[in-house]
Amino acid sequence: MAFDYLSNTPLEEARERFLAILRDSGAVAQSERVAVGDALGRTTAKPIYAAISAPHYHASAMDGIALDAKVTFGATATTPVTIQADDYVVVDTGDPLPEGCDAVIMIEDVVFSEGDGMADLGSCPVTLFAACTPWDNVRQIGEDICAGEMLLTSNVRIEPAAMGAMLAAGIQEVDVIVPPKVGIIPTGDEVVEPSANPLPGDVMEFNSTIFSGMVAQWGAHGITYPIVPDKPDLLREALQHAVDECDIVLVNAGSSAGRDDYTSTIVGEVGEVLFHGIAIKPGKPAILGHAGPVAIVGVPGYPVSGIIVVEELVRPIIEQLLGTPVAQGATIDATLARPCTSSLKHEEFVRVRLGQVGGRVVATPLSRGAGVVTSFVKADGIMRIPQNSEGIEAGSTARVRLLRDAEELAHSLVVIGSHDPLIDEVAQFVHARQPLLSVASTHVGSMGAITAAKRGENHCGGIHLLDEETGLYNESYLEKHFPNGGVRQVECVFRQQGLMVAPGNPHAIQSLADLTEAGRSFVNRQKGSGTRILSDYLCKQGDIDTSAIYGYAHEGFTHTAVAALVESGAADAGMGIYSAAKMYGLDFVPVCEEQYDLLVPDYAWDTPMVQALLDVLASDEFRARMESLGGYRLENPGSVRRHY
Amino acid sequence: MAFDYLSNTPLEEARERFLAILRDSGAVAQSERVAVGDALGRTTAKPIYAAISAPHYHASAMDGIALDAKVTFGATATTPVTIQADDYVVVDTGDPLPEGCDAVIMIEDVVFSEGDGMADLGSCPVTLFAACTPWDNVRQIGEDICAGEMLLTSNVRIEPAAMGAMLAAGIQEVDVIVPPKVGIIPTGDEVVEPSANPLPGDVMEFNSTIFSGMVAQWGAHGITYPIVPDKPDLLREALQHAVDECDIVLVNAGSSAGRDDYTSTIVGEVGEVLFHGIAIKPGKPAILGHAGPVAIVGVPGYPVSGIIVVEELVRPIIEQLLGTPVAQGATIDATLARPCTSSLKHEEFVRVRLGQVGGRVVATPLSRGAGVVTSFVKADGIMRIPQNSEGIEAGSTARVRLLRDAEELAHSLVVIGSHDPLIDEVAQFVHARQPLLSVASTHVGSMGAITAAKRGENHCGGIHLLDEETGLYNESYLEKHFPNGGVRQVECVFRQQGLMVAPGNPHAIQSLADLTEAGRSFVNRQKGSGTRILSDYLCKQGDIDTSAIYGYAHEGFTHTAVAALVESGAADAGMGIYSAAKMYGLDFVPVCEEQYDLLVPDYAWDTPMVQALLDVLASDEFRARMESLGGYRLENPGSVRRHY
Repeated sequence: MAFDYLSNTPLEEARERFLAILRDSGAVAQSERVAVGDALGRTTAKPIYAAISAPHYHASAMDGIALDAKVTFGATATTPVTIQADDYVVVDTGDPLPEGCDAVIMIEDVVFSEGDGMADLGSCPVTLFAACTPWDNVRQIGEDICAGEMLLTSNVRIEPAAMGAMLAAGIQEVDVIVPPKVGIIPTGDEVVEPSANPLPGDVMEFNSTIFSGMVAQWGAHGITYPIVPDKPDLLREALQHAVDECDIVLVNAGSSAGRDDYTSTIVGEVGEVLFHGIAIKPGKPAILGHAGPVAIVGVPGYPVSGIIVVEELVRPIIEQLLGTPVAQGATIDATLARPCTSSLKHEEFVRVRLGQVGGRVVATPLSRGAGVVTSFVKADGIMRIPQNSEGIEAGSTARVRLLRDAEELAHSLVVIGSHDPLIDEVAQFVHARQPLLSVASTHVGSMGAITAAKRGENHCGGIHLLDEETGLYNESYLEKHFPNGGVRQVECVFRQQGLMVAPGNPHAIQSLADLTEAGRSFVNRQKGSGTRILSDYLCKQGDIDTSAIYGYAHEGFTHTAVAALVESGAADAGMGIYSAAKMYGLDFVPVCEEQYDLLVPDYAWDTPMVQALLDVLASDEFRARMESLGGYRLENPGSVRRHY
Repeated sequence: MAFDYLSNTPLEEARERFLAILRDSGAVAQSERVAVGDALGRTTAKPIYAAISAPHYHASAMDGIALDAKVTFGATATTPVTIQADDYVVVDTGDPLPEGCDAVIMIEDVVFSEGDGMADLGSCPVTLFAACTPWDNVRQIGEDICAGEMLLTSNVRIEPAAMGAMLAAGIQEVDVIVPPKVGIIPTGDEVVEPSANPLPGDVMEFNSTIFSGMVAQWGAHGITYPIVPDKPDLLREALQHAVDECDIVLVNAGSSAGRDDYTSTIVGEVGEVLFHGIAIKPGKPAILGHAGPVAIVGVPGYPVSGIIVVEELVRPIIEQLLGTPVAQGATIDATLARPCTSSLKHEEFVRVRLGQVGGRVVATPLSRGAGVVTSFVKADGIMRIPQNSEGIEAGSTARVRLLRDAEELAHSLVVIGSHDPLIDEVAQFVHARQPLLSVASTHVGSMGAITAAKRGENHCGGIHLLDEETGLYNESYLEKHFPNGGVRQVECVFRQQGLMVAPGNPHAIQSLADLTEAGRSFVNRQKGSGTRILSDYLCKQGDIDTSAIYGYAHEGFTHTAVAALVESGAADAGMGIYSAAKMYGLDFVPVCEEQYDLLVPDYAWDTPMVQALLDVLASDEFRARMESLGGYRLENPGSVRRHY
């Protein structure tokens, strides 16, 4: 068989050949016997046959009298039949049918002779005005389960009702598949255990935690081995050890084409390399190999690449070992909000945020950086762009695999607009007050809020657009962009904008003009953000040549990102809000108080999500929280300033 | 507040009032701090803010040289700039950006002077033909996460990627909600621990296993207490003890209106009864009460009623304690195969089997018996019939909540027709060979197979319809019912039909005629089944008055059910196949060998499910298994006898 090294094998082909080779190498899961009560979520190793029937005896289905149906034959409304006490037995629901009886008559249908009553039942004759049929009102043996019948096939997940059915069928223990063992070997000299105070250059090892969690969700058991430094002998030893203990071994990092790439060599020494280089993005440098029945997967170091490789290539191995597919999110069709280009060379997996606005589901691609693990935290779904496609155009429909419930999606407040940390605080209050609701926010600047509302893609968005002519916020922009109206301008907060500078303001920066001095540097916000418009306006007012400010093109996407860069020394100053400066212990040179409103399109107004948002804005807890963050002033948040 | 005893309160109303009262009584979950690595699937108790940024240092995003971007300014293809060794630092991907540097140039863009090469990098001058922009090829601090930003709100489930994000953000421990404790008290004198050999009248206690499994799936922790006999003092003591230890207490059984119904009295003594009697079916006799913040739910004893009550009334309490909805199946629209009547008085929950045939999803109601726990094992979904509705007509559309993946549904072979245990064996082989496929079978007799195929509701079904005129099987029936063709008659097996009788045949039964004797009894199959047609045919041939056979109207729905009834002594004989008799150790009086075919409509022929079925039928393993069951003869199973 010819295999491909550093190749670009299509995913489907690599996966199928990999699985076939593992199967042919004898990869099978082990089974073990566990008590039925401990079998929740486990996978059956064999078909399960009922040992006894359920009910296991003929049981009365009613409170009444049991008798031989024959003694009632002929009874009608006009020819009643009297039954002597010897010919019936009093039974309660669930009682075994007495010997010689084959039917039960409900107590309601029993007529007593004069002088007798319920207290005499069992010792007095009774009269019946209707015949019964054999087995009337009897739960017969096997009504639910017949001994010998198959309750479950092999290779199915055991759910609670099945546990009950097994116990009812006289089964106390069940053969289940031992969770496949997935060994995870983190590698790299720069890799350290997670800590609260890592040093520059330390790469914290959290991939094993993610991978362990993923495989646990699929019914496997992750075993994380100690971090192996970049020494081939140590890696060889660690890999051999893991291969001896596990069904699947993941070697994390060391599989990029960069330095120290000896992983594939060592996989080839301990076992055999099948593929090195899969046509997926992220995840291309993955290695697929095996040592006999044990799968060995070289997983790229960046967390996003790693997650995709584990999802696309490790999960199928677990499914093959369990003999059953593991639960996966549904897929839906979503309209793409922004174009998403892709290389012809790779099948690409794009994390998307989904927003259901007015019945339509809109997908917004999230950061495609392989290091951005929060793109998976924020993602509502994964969109695939096939190999040999140049991408997907805005407005076209794409198939997206959901990472959360469709139900949840329908109850998510879609916030697209200007960034302010208050959006996260609102998200917290909305969800805590109404757990069915959640908030999905995307920070694309004030103009992004307007664009999204025009396209019907958001429920609301922050806007703080200064009109240089009038000095007023937002109004002229909304008039211009919504000439036919259809939106509301909702009051939110007033907030302090200013220059964030290092503690003590060592360079005595008082204005943007001071940043034109040699040696000074700036970090700006992205174009289209209200804060960028403010910086541009201030430069124009002060007659400042923006090209004279070092870093004027250096963009951060949120107030917090700018504050983090100033704190790091990457820039001497950045424009942003007071609360972000305070969060990072920076000094703050106030520039102005600005009006931060929310734009709410009419189509979204009556949704429970927007109504919950308005309730939160008007609440005392929101006011108190904003005051504790600092730099905010609240008048009548949640009130409508103007309906266009 | 006025509360209702033995009432019929609508579910929604009872649930809302119950939840509100619990909330007002101070029902809140506790929180605890756990290591992030142990937090998978737990629910956040507080919003989580990043402690540090990620990356936590400016990192080179490439292998190359780091420098101050200013030194490259002016470099173009025609005006290259030479950088001295002192003015750059060699960096690898992930290395911290050295002091004084603010950009990285990819090694591919570095040009060496003559005589120098890669080995000299770091000690030789290099030439650049393009300027770089500050922060080119640098992963800046906070690119993924900014310190101080909210990573997760409170009351959300922690997924693997979020665990990674927390560790990346310098968070080592996380406050999560302690799983709500759900105490389960089984009650009843007749209730015993599950065993393999229960005595008649013993009711095995498996509800607690089902309920524990259900609440575990929702993130709560079930605690099963010992079975309490029908003694009020003992129940009061057990309930008080559980109330002291748990957030929610389920008292199982004792809540029907029958005998020994003192549960509500005792709930009222330990706490307060809010509702007794909810307008749902099954589940009506449920009791909702509380002792301060602790919910007390009287759960009916029949497992199906219990499951519905736990699902509809306990789950929302858990959700309220966790502050977030727990994952639930999607809902779909399905066409009802059979009419489903319902009482106006109750909201009814009907378990349905779903079949996706030709793009349409058809729902077939399963047994509505409250004791039939396998109806939950077999169910693919739950259909609700609202209160004040008389039911749903066949052919109309109903909303169904899925109990399994929609994906799985689309890969399920829908078998509707005559029963034979071989169908279960086929299900086992199909799923074991192709784990993506499963089999959903419904036993409605041979005529049911024809009806389902006419309506486009099955992929196949067993038929063994004897034509009394010709003595041939199936052909004349298919000709009559499919005058325009569109179905294939596929060979399956020949099987022995006969009379199943007690071991040793104590009554020396040799034919149906022997069953007309006084004292003899019979158990028949349901009308429309091929076996019933056979019995009718034999009676007609033998000139036997069927009304002279005691139990001729007593129906079992499968061969195994009939065998179980004969074994139990409920009947002296039943008509059925050899393998069922063998399974129960019964004697067997052969009557004939019959031809059991499969009817496959053309619309289903090319599905992977039917193709997998045909492969299984033709396999050696199927042949071997059938031979081990006994009473079958195989010629060319899987071959097409005739295409109509």
